[in-house]
Amino acid sequence: MADFDLMRRLAQPAESKIVLLVMDGLGGLPIEPGGPTELEAAHTPNLDRLAAEGCCGLSQPIAPGVSPGSGPAHLALFGYDPLVYDIGRGVLEALGVGFDLRPDDLAARGNFCTVDEQGRITDRRAGRIPTEVCARLTARLQAGTALDGYEVFVQPVKEYRYLFVLRGAGLSSALSETDPLVVGKPSLPVQPLDDSPEAARTAELVNEWLRQARALLADERPANSLNLRGFAKDPGLPKFPDVFKLRAGAIAVYPMYRGVAKLVGMDVLDAGTTLEEEIAALHRHWAEYDFFFVHYKYTDSRGEDGDFAAKVREIEKVDALLPAIRELKPDVLIVTGDHSTPALLKAHSWHPVPVILWSPTALPDRVTSFGERACMAGALGTFPAAELLPLALGHAGRLTRYGA
Amino acid sequence: MADFDLMRRLAQPAESKIVLLVMDGLGGLPIEPGGPTELEAAHTPNLDRLAAEGCCGLSQPIAPGVSPGSGPAHLALFGYDPLVYDIGRGVLEALGVGFDLRPDDLAARGNFCTVDEQGRITDRRAGRIPTEVCARLTARLQAGTALDGYEVFVQPVKEYRYLFVLRGAGLSSALSETDPLVVGKPSLPVQPLDDSPEAARTAELVNEWLRQARALLADERPANSLNLRGFAKDPGLPKFPDVFKLRAGAIAVYPMYRGVAKLVGMDVLDAGTTLEEEIAALHRHWAEYDFFFVHYKYTDSRGEDGDFAAKVREIEKVDALLPAIRELKPDVLIVTGDHSTPALLKAHSWHPVPVILWSPTALPDRVTSFGERACMAGALGTFPAAELLPLALGHAGRLTRYGA
Repeated sequence: MADFDLMRRLAQPAESKIVLLVMDGLGGLPIEPGGPTELEAAHTPNLDRLAAEGCCGLSQPIAPGVSPGSGPAHLALFGYDPLVYDIGRGVLEALGVGFDLRPDDLAARGNFCTVDEQGRITDRRAGRIPTEVCARLTARLQAGTALDGYEVFVQPVKEYRYLFVLRGAGLSSALSETDPLVVGKPSLPVQPLDDSPEAARTAELVNEWLRQARALLADERPANSLNLRGFAKDPGLPKFPDVFKLRAGAIAVYPMYRGVAKLVGMDVLDAGTTLEEEIAALHRHWAEYDFFFVHYKYTDSRGEDGDFAAKVREIEKVDALLPAIRELKPDVLIVTGDHSTPALLKAHSWHPVPVILWSPTALPDRVTSFGERACMAGALGTFPAAELLPLALGHAGRLTRYGA
Repeated sequence: MADFDLMRRLAQPAESKIVLLVMDGLGGLPIEPGGPTELEAAHTPNLDRLAAEGCCGLSQPIAPGVSPGSGPAHLALFGYDPLVYDIGRGVLEALGVGFDLRPDDLAARGNFCTVDEQGRITDRRAGRIPTEVCARLTARLQAGTALDGYEVFVQPVKEYRYLFVLRGAGLSSALSETDPLVVGKPSLPVQPLDDSPEAARTAELVNEWLRQARALLADERPANSLNLRGFAKDPGLPKFPDVFKLRAGAIAVYPMYRGVAKLVGMDVLDAGTTLEEEIAALHRHWAEYDFFFVHYKYTDSRGEDGDFAAKVREIEKVDALLPAIRELKPDVLIVTGDHSTPALLKAHSWHPVPVILWSPTALPDRVTSFGERACMAGALGTFPAAELLPLALGHAGRLTRYGA
């Protein structure tokens, strides 16, 4: 919060343009001891030149040792301390499927599960049913459940995961979860977590919906029951135009990233589906915004697959298109990732993420190639990711002097 | 505190093993300009290999320029911000002599002193009486003082220093000290520092004990009086198993380190007296714990002696036994010190301390030998010591993802 006091005090409009290019899950590890990381292995002449001309470092999204989810990792890149601004699980689930969440909506993550005849959970993930089955079940729930005076939305996410949203006035997210987190026990009732009448009323509503939903699912196998977790509402984050005095446009293909950008007050632009189309959108909207968030998903996807070579190729694709961004002559160009996704681990990891901050006012350090180990020796050192945006504002001439 | 909220939220049990090997007072300085430090001078092929395979840096125990005591320096290595979690002087004194402090005990550090006929202090350290004299005096006080309804313990520490512990219900540590800190003035009475009846009652008790003790010592020379400082109780620190979900075993020979480990909820294991015996204890207990703190004292002792060559030899002894630790195949192995004790200074110092963090998931940096200047170029940079434990948990697969 203190940081935003500073930003609100110092940020000023200017003519400059900032581009934040995020290669999702960029950071990596050697796939075999002594080898290069994905980024070190990739042939990236354009990124190497940018690294040589700019200054480099490693950004830490959340805290030492902590692997970030996509939501908090992007909040950090947008300048928000992810430990202060906590987006609830239900809201992230809604963003992930592109649900158009309204400020009063209550969202939760749902899991289908299997229960025995006594109602005790025997499989918390219902045998990881295929997404198509999830879609059929959520359609059945959408059609067959109702709460008087409220709207209910039930949407498939992936496999056994679904999204539950309740829309209406006076809903509270101060609710306990229903998943007992172990098998052999029945689901728990939703309980209000504070003394407000809103929490009590919302708990009643959700318990009634659970009753209807479980009755509907009783004849299904293996997904004959369900749970709800992570009740949450739009956290009402401070907005980019207010805090940073930036007109901000988001160019991202996947719903999660479009959703987080919307939560911080960016305009979400028509991005198409490929990187070429995303860069075309950047050109098309260049005059309209001060700040552009450009997101590329597939570096993360190939890391999650454990496919080192494919992740290398995705990095090289981005490198090949970098000149199409540079020709727009941004005043500040940042290239980084939101977190690491080493193919070795097939998952998001806690390792800090390579960063290039390029600007005519950046003092070039001695880094001449873009890679994890090269960036260790960079001018930016290892730093909290949330510091990157204020630094960009400085280089963009968008922060007034502090004191006389 | 925020960090422990995060750790409590993310820490999860796992099968992995973490070893934290602490060479007390490891960091050093050149004994002559242009020369190597103790660690740089030492022949350490095993540590150098570990440094090459892992990532390195320098840890700062407390704050820039601040020389740590052993207690706070270890708290930091255990993941506790030493500026938040303050162990009182009396408690540290009790830990240092291996006193089995109970949660309700009130402990204080005592100093013998010399007073003139008017009761004015002429020597605050009673001519630094030998420890044997201290032991005779404390035995006399133990036998000759008593407080109705309470137990009193008086134990020698070193030279003019002794430990005072009062045991009973309802004691407060909110008490002023008796040492006027200058000669030529009389000792001060103990005053309650808050308005509680406990503080008032405890002040009365301690003043009565001081009256009895001074009467007993009146015929002694030079230690004919005494003072009490640093009244403190067990700070009730959050415990390792609760915060980090770690079953933790401490292997340390000296009471201070065993005591601090106990305060954070580690099991204190039978460590023997030599490093070989400590490592044997590590092997013996390997299956029982997730986290092992292994402490080696003599690097610090030789630094305090000002004996550069002897400190080098102690470091080489540890190096020679490193393979006996590595053969256990820990998932994370950290080698560091709690603080620096340069032989040049013959004292604890504020200099940051070399660190190796080795793990199969650590990205090796360009450091290939273990030393202060090599570590300056390491991936970890210079970082707060309290960040080391969360980082180890990440590498050990013991932290769940933050957010989705």
